[in-house]
Amino acid sequence: MASKRIGIIGAGTAGLHLALYLQKHGVKTTIFTDRPSSEYRGMRLLNTVAHHAVTVRRETELGVNFWPAEGYFGHYYYVGTPEPVKFFGALEEPSRAVDYRIYQPKLMDEYARRGGDLRITEIRHGDIADISNNYDLLVVCTGKGPFGQMFQHQPAHSPFTQPQRALCVGLFKGIREPETRAVTMYFSPGAGEMIEIPTLSFNGMVSALVIENHIGGDLEILAKTKYDDNPRAFLDLLLAKLRKHYPTCAERIDEKEFDLANGPLDILQGGVTPTVRNSHVRLDNGKLAVALGDVHAVVDPVLGQGANMASYAAFRLAEEIVKNDVFDERFVEHVDLARQDRVLGATRWTNFMLQHLQAGTPALLDFIGTISRNQALADLFTTNFNYPERQWDCFASVARIKAWCESNLPGDASQAA
Amino acid sequence: MASKRIGIIGAGTAGLHLALYLQKHGVKTTIFTDRPSSEYRGMRLLNTVAHHAVTVRRETELGVNFWPAEGYFGHYYYVGTPEPVKFFGALEEPSRAVDYRIYQPKLMDEYARRGGDLRITEIRHGDIADISNNYDLLVVCTGKGPFGQMFQHQPAHSPFTQPQRALCVGLFKGIREPETRAVTMYFSPGAGEMIEIPTLSFNGMVSALVIENHIGGDLEILAKTKYDDNPRAFLDLLLAKLRKHYPTCAERIDEKEFDLANGPLDILQGGVTPTVRNSHVRLDNGKLAVALGDVHAVVDPVLGQGANMASYAAFRLAEEIVKNDVFDERFVEHVDLARQDRVLGATRWTNFMLQHLQAGTPALLDFIGTISRNQALADLFTTNFNYPERQWDCFASVARIKAWCESNLPGDASQAA
Repeated sequence: MASKRIGIIGAGTAGLHLALYLQKHGVKTTIFTDRPSSEYRGMRLLNTVAHHAVTVRRETELGVNFWPAEGYFGHYYYVGTPEPVKFFGALEEPSRAVDYRIYQPKLMDEYARRGGDLRITEIRHGDIADISNNYDLLVVCTGKGPFGQMFQHQPAHSPFTQPQRALCVGLFKGIREPETRAVTMYFSPGAGEMIEIPTLSFNGMVSALVIENHIGGDLEILAKTKYDDNPRAFLDLLLAKLRKHYPTCAERIDEKEFDLANGPLDILQGGVTPTVRNSHVRLDNGKLAVALGDVHAVVDPVLGQGANMASYAAFRLAEEIVKNDVFDERFVEHVDLARQDRVLGATRWTNFMLQHLQAGTPALLDFIGTISRNQALADLFTTNFNYPERQWDCFASVARIKAWCESNLPGDASQAA
Repeated sequence: MASKRIGIIGAGTAGLHLALYLQKHGVKTTIFTDRPSSEYRGMRLLNTVAHHAVTVRRETELGVNFWPAEGYFGHYYYVGTPEPVKFFGALEEPSRAVDYRIYQPKLMDEYARRGGDLRITEIRHGDIADISNNYDLLVVCTGKGPFGQMFQHQPAHSPFTQPQRALCVGLFKGIREPETRAVTMYFSPGAGEMIEIPTLSFNGMVSALVIENHIGGDLEILAKTKYDDNPRAFLDLLLAKLRKHYPTCAERIDEKEFDLANGPLDILQGGVTPTVRNSHVRLDNGKLAVALGDVHAVVDPVLGQGANMASYAAFRLAEEIVKNDVFDERFVEHVDLARQDRVLGATRWTNFMLQHLQAGTPALLDFIGTISRNQALADLFTTNFNYPERQWDCFASVARIKAWCESNLPGDASQAA
């Protein structure tokens, strides 16, 4: 094929990393998105996303690692049992979180600056065939509007019909960082989880709180109370819940300073239904459309996997686009073989943790207890946030959880376990 | 797991390569087989098998490459169209064929010599549970007796309910080797294919003829006429058919010398139904049994893929056995991810060739014409017998066949194509 032309719908991390990779390798692309980069500054918080080192390395490869010094170095873990469990796991290389209202327009502009064909337009379902006629392959990276319905759910990997957590996600100021710049993962048995992420936003480093509340539990109200109705009342409610459920966060809060970091748009409430959709669909005109990123597989944010699996899948897809001249079922087979273990690993591990953190499954609690007493295991578990398929190697069965701990204990530490 | 114990049923190439790999890596194995190595010498020809360079390299890795100088260097191709097409494709590294009545007992003895636990015993269906109780994992490498039925057919990859060729396979003396030691692949449109393989047998190098006859065609009688009934009549019939369909073989035959190489046991007639079975089954006692080699996927011998895919799959399985401590569905997923593209590639490519050589599909005939005029393409196609998944990358669709030729033509040769 003299000159492949790839149409990319959606300018999230999946679409941007795909486009930048292909651009770097001389493959013609067009990105279609409904928002110009200039509009991101005034938008509501899009999400809260950690890019693990594997993703940062891909950004370096693409020449878009614009925030090399903003990384964090590990995870603090806090389990709010009657005798609280606290420990730290170090990341082998830093992870990093940047407000997507900064990240995405920056990469869009960079793609355009390098000569990329970026089209700001609203696409309706009826437009898809026309657009695909101009490309050898269409890649769909957004589930917005008509696009989610293009790809059928895979029942085997979509066990839920509704969100598993009531989410309240915001960027906050007034929370003092812990000693080491790190994420803190809090577990409040019977109520929820919270992830505190040092995040670069418009005014420097702030704290993202990803508050994951069990449906029907004491914390669910955080997902339903509107900041805009009464900011002070919301903050007071939040402070009260933090003091009760996540005291090691509350104790670092300067209550006079504590508020949304940039203003009222810094909060997002709702939920995510974890879903895996089919990899591809054959359009009526014979062209192939491939699903990438959230429209392929979407997970709850509790483990920070979404952007990383999207970026990983974008690279694997991009490599196959470069290698293949014909975009057919065999091409999709290569793509799936290349990406599926990580994408399904992230999906299944995230769904496992949602279910068993809430249920307080003994095998998982034992696991947390074991790694809390063994630094090497805590570090490995933390670094493996980069490699969700390895986490699934650990959690796919009770026998595996035990075997993982035994086989990864250093020789001398195994006596102490 | 302190000490894994793997039970291996069957001492073919799959079971032997698996056992030798695990033995080398310190994993305890037992091979169960119904024949001692001493009996192979007096047996009927088992099959005719080429080991491509990828398999020879695995033998070298295992320390069982006992025949390093017996390799052949390429494929002659002969298409018996009205204007015959003849060309040669070079292998990047030599392939090699050794009579399995020599190869298999040699490797069995070597396994035992290195301390392997080789048990000569007939296993009945009722014995499987008892045996599996003694092992962490059972690997089934034979479809004999009760074992084939343990694993269900996969309909998607088992398109045939009966053999696609009536086979007549034998080891012959009296055929002068061509200029370069090589396989010759003959195609007689409407009648069949024949593969001539320089093969090491008991008395040195002889010629294996793998005569693949279309059902209902002029050559089918070769699969039905018994040598033992009247050797002279059989040889005369065969010579007549070779002169008519495969004249470039016939012209190298010394008719006075021409006969089975070692005696009447050197011929095998019948057919193979191409089949893919499920990867694994959970036994009633909870133990896992994995299918390997022919019992997992069996192909017609026309492209010489069977032993190579079995050896490849044995190595991938062995690597996962070494890596994993728990033998569960996640383990099987790793095994399948590691082996499936090659195993299915060999299966689908072989089935494609069976179907389209017989049908005389224009896209395939055009392909043969193109590579016959371009040495680089002929060499690449020949070397890719090592990599059946790459052949499937070429043949999975008509568009791919054209694209393969275009993208693999050297710059200057593309003008001449």
